[in-house]
Amino acid sequence: MGNGLLKMQKRTFIISSGSVVGQKEKHGPLGEFFDLSGDDRFGKDTWEKSEAEMQRLALGIALRKAELMEDIDVLFAGDLINQCISSSYGLLEYKFPFLGLFGACSTCAEGLLMSAVYASTVSTRCAAVTSSHFCSAERQFRYPLEYGGQRPPTSQWTVTGSGAFVVSSDVGDVQLNKSKYVPEIVEVMPGRMIDRGISDANNMGAAMAPSAVDTLERYFSLGHAPDEFDLIITGDLGREGSGILIDLLSARGIDISKNHVDCGNMVFEPTSSDTHAGGSGCGCSAVVMSADILENLRRGKVSDILFLGTGALMNPMSVSQGQTIPGIAHLLHIRGAEVDSI
Amino acid sequence: MGNGLLKMQKRTFIISSGSVVGQKEKHGPLGEFFDLSGDDRFGKDTWEKSEAEMQRLALGIALRKAELMEDIDVLFAGDLINQCISSSYGLLEYKFPFLGLFGACSTCAEGLLMSAVYASTVSTRCAAVTSSHFCSAERQFRYPLEYGGQRPPTSQWTVTGSGAFVVSSDVGDVQLNKSKYVPEIVEVMPGRMIDRGISDANNMGAAMAPSAVDTLERYFSLGHAPDEFDLIITGDLGREGSGILIDLLSARGIDISKNHVDCGNMVFEPTSSDTHAGGSGCGCSAVVMSADILENLRRGKVSDILFLGTGALMNPMSVSQGQTIPGIAHLLHIRGAEVDSI
Repeated sequence: MGNGLLKMQKRTFIISSGSVVGQKEKHGPLGEFFDLSGDDRFGKDTWEKSEAEMQRLALGIALRKAELMEDIDVLFAGDLINQCISSSYGLLEYKFPFLGLFGACSTCAEGLLMSAVYASTVSTRCAAVTSSHFCSAERQFRYPLEYGGQRPPTSQWTVTGSGAFVVSSDVGDVQLNKSKYVPEIVEVMPGRMIDRGISDANNMGAAMAPSAVDTLERYFSLGHAPDEFDLIITGDLGREGSGILIDLLSARGIDISKNHVDCGNMVFEPTSSDTHAGGSGCGCSAVVMSADILENLRRGKVSDILFLGTGALMNPMSVSQGQTIPGIAHLLHIRGAEVDSI
Repeated sequence: MGNGLLKMQKRTFIISSGSVVGQKEKHGPLGEFFDLSGDDRFGKDTWEKSEAEMQRLALGIALRKAELMEDIDVLFAGDLINQCISSSYGLLEYKFPFLGLFGACSTCAEGLLMSAVYASTVSTRCAAVTSSHFCSAERQFRYPLEYGGQRPPTSQWTVTGSGAFVVSSDVGDVQLNKSKYVPEIVEVMPGRMIDRGISDANNMGAAMAPSAVDTLERYFSLGHAPDEFDLIITGDLGREGSGILIDLLSARGIDISKNHVDCGNMVFEPTSSDTHAGGSGCGCSAVVMSADILENLRRGKVSDILFLGTGALMNPMSVSQGQTIPGIAHLLHIRGAEVDSI
């Protein structure tokens, strides 16, 4: 086995992205930055169709921003709903060659990783889409919404949102960029499944943190140090999992306490009702990356980041059958490349 | 958008594969060719754990045949069970970098396609695994097993089986091959989601056939003809879907009636009880490809094939919400390369 790091064969850029969120996210700290928000139904008669509609809208926004409506070589997508139907129904009308992913809440990172690998080798332009919806997730993974189940402090609130990203190795696409910098995916590292015996489905942060530890430890062992990066971003560890991640790495002599942020901690106010340990879901990191982190890279506010998508690879049946919960964390090293120098 | 065809950047080979099946498959026409069969429980106390165990066993067999136990750069896997838990629990112990897929019954082709793209570019050795289990699928998608629901003639029987494949661009790996030929993945074409309005969840063949038509039509439009290939293999269209595929292509002036075969038609005797229109599931094409088709390539019995994994991108809730069923079909062009000439 190699060291697990995959380097892009051509320079590869995130040339546009789109974010669509629901009401609770709109009223959160990043509310003004999302491209589109709606009531949580998005004009549909079931929550599953609403979630699919968010994917359709998010990809449409990203394609329009990239001034590309038909030129996607491969589309990657996945979500949390059984058999990933939000992706298939949401993206059906686009008619792009499609490769479905399942990475639970790590799907945003997995889709960007896939897009970067393909766009830098066998393809030129790829897109990645993912989503989650509080209402479709809650009734599938936990209780009927009408039941109003109480949740412990370590539990997280599934983000209602979808993020879409267009990734290209065509320098011509980059020149259309209207900002001084463009996010460039430099290298990626797929995660490994790590199971540290967490069986509490209300504490996903604890289940996922060890996989982020594993990926970061492997990455830093290749000669990198945490202080090279303006931000080390995790997807949805939440407050519980973020603390565990910092502590576990600290015990291994790696200090990320100064530059670590978690999308789950950013998307809602800590005081927002019932969000407890923070946001979660495939949509969580997707909308925060699209609306906030990548935007800050484009503006030069940050210039070098690590993004780890974190996922918990379980389902309600595996938990009820007594299985513990493995996590996974895929890493991307993204930097802001000066457009004029490309 | 390009023509959708992805060409390998280095010569890339399927250097080994493993197949594990249950009792009904063992007693089918290909029974003697599978690497391992067991009672359908595989020593586990739930059907979901049994399915995961088949994945663990299948990958172990493929790795042993390749004389590689630790040198996999990226592992791709997915399955039909909600949130793909057969893959996560089944493959957890291998500790390889892992990228999860969801392609429904097309997952074998999607995993091989991914492995070929990665192994020919950013990685060297990849593996792809998938599975299905009649009992876990039946109770998740249809009725409790104890109910013994009757099924119409167009319905198919989910194959209990798992297939694993090791794909490498390292010529040294090929030299270990003990046969005269080795399957080489020449080029691949990801499918597009196609929905022709089929809403009958007991007729997956009809739902999936139009996507196979779309992919084959796109492929042949690049200057290929059906008679270049010894076999044009679909994953699990079954007898109903195979007939539809041949008819729809015939109406477009493309005749595949002479060399088309379907893994779903090969895995069970037509008279096998309750299998109706044939086998289905992620495991169907995986075990037939591993035990039969690839073996015939290795022996020189066939030398040039097209393999299309076919999948139906739905879940029981989408059907109950009145959604029709999109299909997808990923294509691989595989040929038998003479080992001495590599």
